[in-house]
Amino acid sequence: MKATISEVKKHVGAEVTIGIWLANKRSSGKIQFLELRDGTGFIQGVVLKNEVSEENWEKAKELTQESSLYVTGIVREDKRAPSGFELTVTSLDVIQIAHEYPITPKEHGVEFLMDHRHLWLRSSRQHAILRIRDEVIKATYDFFHDNGFIKVDPPILTGSSAEGTTDLFHTKYFDRDAYLSQSGQLYMEAAAMAFGKVFSFGPAFRAEKSKTRRHLIEFWMIEPEMAFCDHEESLKIQENYVAYLVQEVLKNCQSELKIISRDTTKLEKIKAPFPRISYDEAIDFLKKEGFEDIEWGDDFGSPHETAIAEHFEVPVFVTEYPTKVKAFYMKPDPNRDDVVLCADLLAPEGYGEIIGGSQRIDDLELMKKRYEAFHLTDPSYKWYLELRQYGSVPHSGFGLGLERAIAWICGLDHIRETIPFPRLLNRIYP
Amino acid sequence: MKATISEVKKHVGAEVTIGIWLANKRSSGKIQFLELRDGTGFIQGVVLKNEVSEENWEKAKELTQESSLYVTGIVREDKRAPSGFELTVTSLDVIQIAHEYPITPKEHGVEFLMDHRHLWLRSSRQHAILRIRDEVIKATYDFFHDNGFIKVDPPILTGSSAEGTTDLFHTKYFDRDAYLSQSGQLYMEAAAMAFGKVFSFGPAFRAEKSKTRRHLIEFWMIEPEMAFCDHEESLKIQENYVAYLVQEVLKNCQSELKIISRDTTKLEKIKAPFPRISYDEAIDFLKKEGFEDIEWGDDFGSPHETAIAEHFEVPVFVTEYPTKVKAFYMKPDPNRDDVVLCADLLAPEGYGEIIGGSQRIDDLELMKKRYEAFHLTDPSYKWYLELRQYGSVPHSGFGLGLERAIAWICGLDHIRETIPFPRLLNRIYP
Ligand SMILES: [Mg+2]
Ligand SMILES: [Mg+2]
Repeated sequence: MKATISEVKKHVGAEVTIGIWLANKRSSGKIQFLELRDGTGFIQGVVLKNEVSEENWEKAKELTQESSLYVTGIVREDKRAPSGFELTVTSLDVIQIAHEYPITPKEHGVEFLMDHRHLWLRSSRQHAILRIRDEVIKATYDFFHDNGFIKVDPPILTGSSAEGTTDLFHTKYFDRDAYLSQSGQLYMEAAAMAFGKVFSFGPAFRAEKSKTRRHLIEFWMIEPEMAFCDHEESLKIQENYVAYLVQEVLKNCQSELKIISRDTTKLEKIKAPFPRISYDEAIDFLKKEGFEDIEWGDDFGSPHETAIAEHFEVPVFVTEYPTKVKAFYMKPDPNRDDVVLCADLLAPEGYGEIIGGSQRIDDLELMKKRYEAFHLTDPSYKWYLELRQYGSVPHSGFGLGLERAIAWICGLDHIRETIPFPRLLNRIYP
Repeated sequence: MKATISEVKKHVGAEVTIGIWLANKRSSGKIQFLELRDGTGFIQGVVLKNEVSEENWEKAKELTQESSLYVTGIVREDKRAPSGFELTVTSLDVIQIAHEYPITPKEHGVEFLMDHRHLWLRSSRQHAILRIRDEVIKATYDFFHDNGFIKVDPPILTGSSAEGTTDLFHTKYFDRDAYLSQSGQLYMEAAAMAFGKVFSFGPAFRAEKSKTRRHLIEFWMIEPEMAFCDHEESLKIQENYVAYLVQEVLKNCQSELKIISRDTTKLEKIKAPFPRISYDEAIDFLKKEGFEDIEWGDDFGSPHETAIAEHFEVPVFVTEYPTKVKAFYMKPDPNRDDVVLCADLLAPEGYGEIIGGSQRIDDLELMKKRYEAFHLTDPSYKWYLELRQYGSVPHSGFGLGLERAIAWICGLDHIRETIPFPRLLNRIYP
């Protein structure tokens, strides 16, 4: 019977045939131990010289790392095995003997592994990280659909830059100029006025010449936007969403977390509500901590974010940043217009900002002033102003960077392992 | 109590407050009928002069189309109402009176509506179509996750063109050249070797100067890829997937299908398995139908696809196309190498191809020959060849065009209504 490794638990004692690759092998006299993988998991195949044909014994001996084959065997329960099961091999049908597979169990340099990313994905650690990524994706769809959001896809190609930044990829769109989206937020605001609660989930692009362990050139973002929703209600959705992601990974990815040696006691502490500190408090705190490079009105850099987040075991909201360091569309605090109704969510363990969000300006006159101040004279922005003209309502939204969230949940040193084919300053291959 | 229109069924007899827009209004002496929308649905609000304050009566009179307000009222069951419920208004709290909303119940030209797409989304027909889009997206994730696939995101920016076409958007990637992906398939093959069964779901870009009712410049694709899976098994997954999409829309979107006047009896016939005809048979058929512009070896155009599909009430697979009209990576039929193990799935009612799929070449030597024949000398293709070198296995995959599938399911004249912000030859605004 055809099966996958993930299905063997249903076939204990039965003979199954699995399409499979050899991940590793060791032998001890009259036994060969095949470490097998099929994409759904890993299992040990045991080949006993006395119990298989001479031909099958020899075939097993010829198998090299990443050779492909159909293996037939009896499923045995084995509590010592990581998967809990083992396969007593009865026969082998080799598809291809792989020669000199470049990624061996020895250590390789990062650039070498990245050059072989199309193969590196097969290794147990990369496999586990990207299975967790899939779980985070699934949990995201489930969370927003279960909470009455509908998915809206904002365009990737736009005729203007969303926030006046220069870090944009440019392309010719027939006879016009176009740019790759860094954020679909402005479009999501239009969608929220049509659908109430919406979320996007798609790629975003930042042509930033940074080479840090937190930056990708191409990354995926989740951008929810909610009509008739104020800053406070938005924060509640954010903390419930992030807590749900962690909870689902803990529930469904225990074996993957084990493979990557994640300290899950840290993840088990992630429960909503999350603590909050205001920007004002954060500035005071940083000064007390001895930071001399920061004044009220400055934006935080990574070291500041890390210092703040280190004092918490769960993500922390830093709220009400100065108006001048934040985007033109954020709504000023009604009690003082030098700060806006916004928050960044900083992950613990030094992973920095994973969410940025705010209530948006809903007042037409104020938004017109912002258009003047930010020189948003490009006609491609006309439609966004109109959202404040025809039935403007209080609304809020936020953006979560998928890869930064995964880097934190997995406890990774570098964001490049969180995405199947990372795009970095010096890398667009494979 | 705060509520949404979709929630009123839980609050019959109770007083609720809903953040809402005025879609339309009519009055008859001492009654004003407010057609209200909040993104989750539509409901009629009834304002009775004798039962509200003079102030509220006047406020209701001032409301213009798309004005925003909080409306408080008692939920009543009403079998005659499209939603089944009505709101007896007790008070109104106006947020903004909208002036001269550009989209009125009268007819507008398509270009005018497209220029106001950010507002047009609010109309009941566009709202319904994009809710069906959300349902198709949700059903896609559910189908693939329930069937053991994991989501893998191939890169959008690549250093090479995937199939040697010229219809690519170009950008500078720092000091290099890069292109926007038309398909992630080659990357999905690498992923299938690591994860077994994978699917992608993301935007794709075609810089094609076509202006037909079937083409978008920016569209979304679902690209599953399965290791240890032959052409036949792939066809089964395809028909089950498409039938599932239709079934879920029928199950969850009856009111939306009604708003867009979709003939649902046609959708109710969509059940797997789907009929198949070979390319050879299709050529004979077209000749009998009087087509003189097609010979064995030619690819089909829209008129040919329509003629074939019109003879079926469900989607039909056209299988085994000539090798020379299909992509370099398709596996030749083992019995005759002038055709490949592929199929296009043609939707009924003239909607044309919604899926293209094939078994892929797994033989290293044959793939090397294809590389020579197709001049794939660019080093950016090196990794793809290596997939046949290290544990090559039989594998198949396909791509479904999301918007084409939605156009068919919704029975639309033009694909531009299937996506929130369409990108067309002459349109990149809003
Ligand atoms: Mg920040
Ligand atoms: Mg075709």
